[in-house]
Amino acid sequence: MSATPSRLTTIRDFTILLDKYDTWMFDCDGVLWRGSEIIEGVIEVLHILRCRRKKIIFVTNNAAKSRKSYKSKFDKLGLEVHVDEIYGSAHAAAVYLSSVVKLPKSKKVYVIGMKGLEEELEEEGVSYLGGTDPHDNTLHPFSLDEFHLDPDVAAVVCGLDMSINYTKIAKAFQYLTRNSGCQFIAANEDSTYPASNGILPGAGAVMAPLRHMLGRDPICTGKPSAIMLDCIKAKVKFDPKRTLMVGDRLNTDIEFGHNGGLSTLLVLTGVTSESDISGPNASPTIPDFVVTSLGDLRILDREVA
Amino acid sequence: MSATPSRLTTIRDFTILLDKYDTWMFDCDGVLWRGSEIIEGVIEVLHILRCRRKKIIFVTNNAAKSRKSYKSKFDKLGLEVHVDEIYGSAHAAAVYLSSVVKLPKSKKVYVIGMKGLEEELEEEGVSYLGGTDPHDNTLHPFSLDEFHLDPDVAAVVCGLDMSINYTKIAKAFQYLTRNSGCQFIAANEDSTYPASNGILPGAGAVMAPLRHMLGRDPICTGKPSAIMLDCIKAKVKFDPKRTLMVGDRLNTDIEFGHNGGLSTLLVLTGVTSESDISGPNASPTIPDFVVTSLGDLRILDREVA
Repeated sequence: MSATPSRLTTIRDFTILLDKYDTWMFDCDGVLWRGSEIIEGVIEVLHILRCRRKKIIFVTNNAAKSRKSYKSKFDKLGLEVHVDEIYGSAHAAAVYLSSVVKLPKSKKVYVIGMKGLEEELEEEGVSYLGGTDPHDNTLHPFSLDEFHLDPDVAAVVCGLDMSINYTKIAKAFQYLTRNSGCQFIAANEDSTYPASNGILPGAGAVMAPLRHMLGRDPICTGKPSAIMLDCIKAKVKFDPKRTLMVGDRLNTDIEFGHNGGLSTLLVLTGVTSESDISGPNASPTIPDFVVTSLGDLRILDREVA
Repeated sequence: MSATPSRLTTIRDFTILLDKYDTWMFDCDGVLWRGSEIIEGVIEVLHILRCRRKKIIFVTNNAAKSRKSYKSKFDKLGLEVHVDEIYGSAHAAAVYLSSVVKLPKSKKVYVIGMKGLEEELEEEGVSYLGGTDPHDNTLHPFSLDEFHLDPDVAAVVCGLDMSINYTKIAKAFQYLTRNSGCQFIAANEDSTYPASNGILPGAGAVMAPLRHMLGRDPICTGKPSAIMLDCIKAKVKFDPKRTLMVGDRLNTDIEFGHNGGLSTLLVLTGVTSESDISGPNASPTIPDFVVTSLGDLRILDREVA
């Protein structure tokens, strides 16, 4: 972490980066693509890194999709990746429940979230209710008289949920306040996310009613949480000193790198602009390096070839 | 406001109270009734106050009902009141928009809320959209492509909304961020409310996603806000020094009294218990007086008779 980030613009700058880091971790939206459009030069840059035998890891806070369904996004954009290279906050939530909380097989979680979160829970053998269950995806008035409190619900897990409604919030609140020791877990705290044509409510907005009612924060498994990095560490060997985290968000990607002792590279193709990193309103979170776009590194192919 | 509240138990205590205050303001739920059951002695106490020609005002944060429909609750429980004696947070929100914001007739508000809030807006001549509109009461995926941003929406108003959903949150967020100067108003911040058989999400929980996304608080019109008292002042003449606010919640009712320079009487028939007002975990908000139940004052009828 340096006081001011180094601006990288020349082949020489990029070559030093390439020599210094063996493992490259990437945020996706705003770094590799924007909405449904790939950022120019990204395919070439990933190709260069693979030719140099760099370890490549994709780290996303997207909690609506499982890693498997997220891979299809890469496929569509012509990015060749392996599903094992992808780490998502829904996956991290599921791994946290199975490996850290060590939820007994007899216990369940109540899900505020979508199919992707359910798939990740299934993958980790975690039983759940709520989520996409039609009974909970309703605007029918919620009544406590008709509600059966399942005593086996030991956690509430929140991800992005575009079918969020009063019934889900009310049920989750009952579990969190009436089932002793029930854990409050959120895939991520991102209040919004960038859609292709605007800004929409994110997982953090969806869990905000519960946080307000409980007066406490959930355990967050997505970036910048160390839980996400622990999930990666459990599967991949890497030296933090020789690892670079590339992202477009200071409070998630760059903080995530800082928390994990990784070096950090900010790209300006996403939500962060020049005024966020320099001048009077600059953020206190400072990346090690800045490039205008990840695609800029493609000039390295002259070196590689 | 005193350092420790006076416990009132005797006819002599209550007689002093009766002599000291001309205007009596009451919170309703937890003071007059609990769920659908009236608290013993309350009918007699209100009768005593009316016989003594006290000014009586009911001040509720219930934002789901209009004053008119709230009156039917009094009727059902055998409490004779006039609709003009009732002041609600939905009414306060509507009055705030018409009298303080002075919303031009050409402008509208986007409503997250129920029929009661709409009725209060209509009463004040404020145009609105959202609310109970079937188009907004849906779990159908929200798409910005199909969304038309109405440039005349100049405020978002949130009350309790048991049909809260992603579409409403997303639309409200668009107005608050894309219509310049759009105001963020909440009928109240109560995170929960007591139903007859448990605790359910309140208006504060419903507006929490927007607060999280915007990173700022709404203007709240319900207790403990002075906006609510201003609404009452606009209609009723009273001397704050000779006015008593009776309530069961320290952070709404008693704070409301303090903010308005009124004396305060806490009852223990609602959400506040002995341990909240004395001992190591006592709240910093201290009422002037405490009675176990408003019904205790009925022993005064011996005096009156």
